[in-house]
Amino acid sequence: MRTILAFTLASLLALPAWADEAKPTPTTKELLARSAPQEWRTPDPANLLDMKLPGGHVLIELAPDFTPLHAANIRTLVHEHYFDGLAIVRVQDNFVTQWDDPAADDEDKAHIKPLGSAKKTLPPEYTRAIDPKLEWTPLPDGDVYAKEVGFSEGFPVARDPASGREWITHCYGTVGVARDVGPTTGNGSALYAIIGQAPRGLDRNLAVAGRVIDGMELLSGLPRGPAPMGFYADKAQRVPIESVRLAADLPAAERPKIEVLRTDSATFAKLIEAKRNRRDAFYTNPAGAIDLCSIAIPSRVKK
Amino acid sequence: MRTILAFTLASLLALPAWADEAKPTPTTKELLARSAPQEWRTPDPANLLDMKLPGGHVLIELAPDFTPLHAANIRTLVHEHYFDGLAIVRVQDNFVTQWDDPAADDEDKAHIKPLGSAKKTLPPEYTRAIDPKLEWTPLPDGDVYAKEVGFSEGFPVARDPASGREWITHCYGTVGVARDVGPTTGNGSALYAIIGQAPRGLDRNLAVAGRVIDGMELLSGLPRGPAPMGFYADKAQRVPIESVRLAADLPAAERPKIEVLRTDSATFAKLIEAKRNRRDAFYTNPAGAIDLCSIAIPSRVKK
Repeated sequence: MRTILAFTLASLLALPAWADEAKPTPTTKELLARSAPQEWRTPDPANLLDMKLPGGHVLIELAPDFTPLHAANIRTLVHEHYFDGLAIVRVQDNFVTQWDDPAADDEDKAHIKPLGSAKKTLPPEYTRAIDPKLEWTPLPDGDVYAKEVGFSEGFPVARDPASGREWITHCYGTVGVARDVGPTTGNGSALYAIIGQAPRGLDRNLAVAGRVIDGMELLSGLPRGPAPMGFYADKAQRVPIESVRLAADLPAAERPKIEVLRTDSATFAKLIEAKRNRRDAFYTNPAGAIDLCSIAIPSRVKK
Repeated sequence: MRTILAFTLASLLALPAWADEAKPTPTTKELLARSAPQEWRTPDPANLLDMKLPGGHVLIELAPDFTPLHAANIRTLVHEHYFDGLAIVRVQDNFVTQWDDPAADDEDKAHIKPLGSAKKTLPPEYTRAIDPKLEWTPLPDGDVYAKEVGFSEGFPVARDPASGREWITHCYGTVGVARDVGPTTGNGSALYAIIGQAPRGLDRNLAVAGRVIDGMELLSGLPRGPAPMGFYADKAQRVPIESVRLAADLPAAERPKIEVLRTDSATFAKLIEAKRNRRDAFYTNPAGAIDLCSIAIPSRVKK
């Protein structure tokens, strides 16, 4: 359903018989309906964050294969309830939604929340050595920014064979570690999610903590902040964070029920191909290609 | 200011002296401050739409060089106040915000607004023959989808030299003509703006009406619709359109005061280069490339 721009909902209900092709490209819905149970994975509870906002839950999967020290620090912060009572302080159009300690932005610095047991500085972890033990599902159409792109362990990833490095790319929904100017000034206590065109210039300049796997619209569908860089000038505009919990810290019955399509599954490959060459009564000129950040990784409620 | 992910606003005010480079890459603000007046253009009032929403004004520049029949039809619709009282009916996350006649979505079809003097069907105008008389400012880094990309007459454009065709691409802020299944079912009475990662698969499958040049955040910062394809299930969620006016239909004093940086200007070239190879105290690993849809075309209030 994602890419049909029909005039009205009503008209959709009256779709004509397929005219051009005997077999139109299957839709995402159709492909997912045919997927096998083993093509889905349940995120490790030690890597799954449940952020509760007034509008609902945002689920974030951490990426310890790529940023292990950041994942560990964020787990510590969450375990000690660091984010409870903090806020979304910044929504910059076509760029990022950011959450952190609003007291750090206010004049009165006396109320800045301490980081508890978490580290205040971390090595950058902007890239890692290519590890052949990690999943690697390459894409066929190239990339403007990197020599190779594809998916690894459920994340969009770019690689530079010459340097032997790889890194998670800044795509829609990528969660990164905000920092000050120095490369060791990020610690996971301030995070952002990408809400616009993939700002790939951030790649290799910031540590990626993980990816939003559910509830993205609670971060992207917010009023943009009027102050420079999208900060909310009026404190009342900030969106309070009720709590952030690590699934592993919750009783099994209270953990988010979510599963994610494996990026090395046959169904995911079919989804990519269907987007590369969509041909049906509506799409008559297939793109013939797909860029990394245009591929959504499906997730669903686990039964 | 756009791409700095500083920890806090306060920290920005205490930026250290540049450490790595004698001359850091200039910022957008710095480059624009040095631009010459003749590098800016005032959109033709015959191509400038002023859409008034409860939150403010959205300005859209039509693209008659690429879709002349659609521009003419939209001018007719606007001239006859077709859009006044219609609504934003759909906001699909990471895809589009769409506005049209909500009665077309409702059960009672008796209240559908007539199109007046406007045509009900139009030729598709998905692509046009490459015209050497139009500006062509190519980009150097290639593209996943098209043989050539660049800017033409203020719009992001892709080209296929083999077929001799060119088309405006679906980037953030591109305004397209929603349609039913058939290619001649679009007429400009239902429009959408791209609010997420560039859905380039729409290129050559839909007519592009133009581009949002101001007020984009009023379309992108809306709650996402919960119904399929992002439609607002609850009619009360729809955002009413107070009016849409063509600048040419307004008295000169009431026309929007806006100007847009020329895409064939030296300053625009410098902006692109600064994004391709940004190097300063924050960005230590320049991307070395830029993709078409990551380049924002600056606009500003005309003094």
